[in-house]
Amino acid sequence: MRPHRTRVELADGRELFYFDIDTTASRDHADQRELPARSPAGELRFDVARGEWVTVAASRQTRPFLPPTDECPLCPSRAGALTEIPAPAYEVAVFENRFPSFGGLATGDHDTPAHGRCEVVCFTDDHGVAFSQLSPRRVELVLAALADRTRELSALPDVAQVFCFENRGEEIGVTLHHPHGQIYAYPFVTPTTEQMLNRAAARPALFAGILAAERSDERVVASNELWTAFVPLAARWPFEVHIYPHRQVPDLAALPEEFRAAFAPLYLDVLRGLDALFDSPLPYVSGWHQAPVDRGRDLAWLHLELYSVRRAPGKLKYLAGSESAMGAFINDIQPELAARLIREAIQTT
Amino acid sequence: MRPHRTRVELADGRELFYFDIDTTASRDHADQRELPARSPAGELRFDVARGEWVTVAASRQTRPFLPPTDECPLCPSRAGALTEIPAPAYEVAVFENRFPSFGGLATGDHDTPAHGRCEVVCFTDDHGVAFSQLSPRRVELVLAALADRTRELSALPDVAQVFCFENRGEEIGVTLHHPHGQIYAYPFVTPTTEQMLNRAAARPALFAGILAAERSDERVVASNELWTAFVPLAARWPFEVHIYPHRQVPDLAALPEEFRAAFAPLYLDVLRGLDALFDSPLPYVSGWHQAPVDRGRDLAWLHLELYSVRRAPGKLKYLAGSESAMGAFINDIQPELAARLIREAIQTT
Repeated sequence: MRPHRTRVELADGRELFYFDIDTTASRDHADQRELPARSPAGELRFDVARGEWVTVAASRQTRPFLPPTDECPLCPSRAGALTEIPAPAYEVAVFENRFPSFGGLATGDHDTPAHGRCEVVCFTDDHGVAFSQLSPRRVELVLAALADRTRELSALPDVAQVFCFENRGEEIGVTLHHPHGQIYAYPFVTPTTEQMLNRAAARPALFAGILAAERSDERVVASNELWTAFVPLAARWPFEVHIYPHRQVPDLAALPEEFRAAFAPLYLDVLRGLDALFDSPLPYVSGWHQAPVDRGRDLAWLHLELYSVRRAPGKLKYLAGSESAMGAFINDIQPELAARLIREAIQTT
Repeated sequence: MRPHRTRVELADGRELFYFDIDTTASRDHADQRELPARSPAGELRFDVARGEWVTVAASRQTRPFLPPTDECPLCPSRAGALTEIPAPAYEVAVFENRFPSFGGLATGDHDTPAHGRCEVVCFTDDHGVAFSQLSPRRVELVLAALADRTRELSALPDVAQVFCFENRGEEIGVTLHHPHGQIYAYPFVTPTTEQMLNRAAARPALFAGILAAERSDERVVASNELWTAFVPLAARWPFEVHIYPHRQVPDLAALPEEFRAAFAPLYLDVLRGLDALFDSPLPYVSGWHQAPVDRGRDLAWLHLELYSVRRAPGKLKYLAGSESAMGAFINDIQPELAARLIREAIQTT
């Protein structure tokens, strides 16, 4: 699949990209809104006790919080309801976040501005669907868009790592219901990626070993020729699924097209299974672990990790003392049981 | 303060300790309940990709979840309502958790059982109060109890680190409202402590430097001769306060008595200020960072870290994609602003 990409500029200068399979669609609608100046950049602060960067992004505090459906900023624009997306319809649209954690207007206010960039990825113009209800073809288009954005963002001078993810469900803090994901192009290598690279540097074939061990074990929930989805041996969350390609690639930009095509039906199976576990759709965080832009490219192994905070109907897993203060996770559900429940749920959907 | 300690055994063999200032109180009431056998021990699993231990504690899934007040297991026992605490009244009581993440009955089911121990710390027998409403004298008694428990748990053969903490508020996942804290005696050194010790080993006087820098800065919220409470430069949470003693000690067991006495009024000021920030009491995690049992004793610097998930009235800070998948925290509130708000709130209470 080679989607058609159209670049436009929003009223405040932010970039928006349409990704379309239908190459005949018109995408040259202008943003008719009057927008205030872009948000100022946040600030990076170094926590010397832990050796990690923390980002202070005070201007995000005013972002929209669960607006009514008819004010959704991710729906296509229509007369009287102009949104972030000027076109009256779209397939996949990606644009710079108006309330970014990274990037934004450089103001010179900080010694260490939070450079980088944040983008919003709209999976469909249909406000009411979930990712799990997309067609395989649409999932492939989303992956193509993420690959495109990973490639371009990786080339920006201040970007050290690109993270593509979806937060789904109010229980995980989602502030907009329209099906969408996000891309964070960080100006530093994140703590978790740093940690994994250190492990991989010290242990030859770390990720190949993980994949081989999990593929032969009872925690596999779905697989095909090119991908395996499994609950990891040491799952931190009640329902946690990792999806590995059967070949080492550093990031989505390097992922061959046939892997994108094979991922779509597998991931949809997993998501539908997860949504069938309980009476209501599962809240989750799903994100692509990618190599940093300029190191560890042969050590990192692109993969997706999905976590849910729900541990039982109406019960959430909170990050309380042990997790948030000590980084020591307690999981109340045995990973083998979670895997069996997910497998069974996939079979019934 | 040298509190009187009484040890009793609960019906299923778990230990309970009363800590009393009033040495005349009778504490020899027997546990009249018939209890099922103790929960089996959980299991430790090593996450090779991150190099961290994760604990699978499946038997905790059935623990009580917000029981009605008249069934509170942490209230004193009365006729017809027998609880975890046999006495009809108490000052501070500490007992082994019936649904422990660490410890529990060894079953031989696992290669790597989650040894260690979990205890519950009841701050008062008054179900309806918050920690912030305790008297300074009671806070001192709580600290004396935590010091006692830290000392004894540190001596157990399977314990590598002792963590004393309080989770407060349903928004942080509290399952019992009665004012209480917890102690986790881990069989491994936790990821965060490991990380801090590595930093301290590489940087002479790391914590002394942090304390000196923060004491001279605008983020101090309260202080006295022996302690300073501040919002850290790189706060991860909207409202986060660290409280350092002005002298290096590895843990509460090593903290001189005059430090305990001086901590109580300072901490109460901070908690009352935090509760005055919004219309309703602030949900928080508050925990003591202590040195491991047998290493880093001269590198670690005992201190308390308190985090709140609330970022505005009715709005919570969630650990979504960036935090939970990448360990990269985004804080929407500038730490200097948070410090000013907390200082002002302390002055008005």
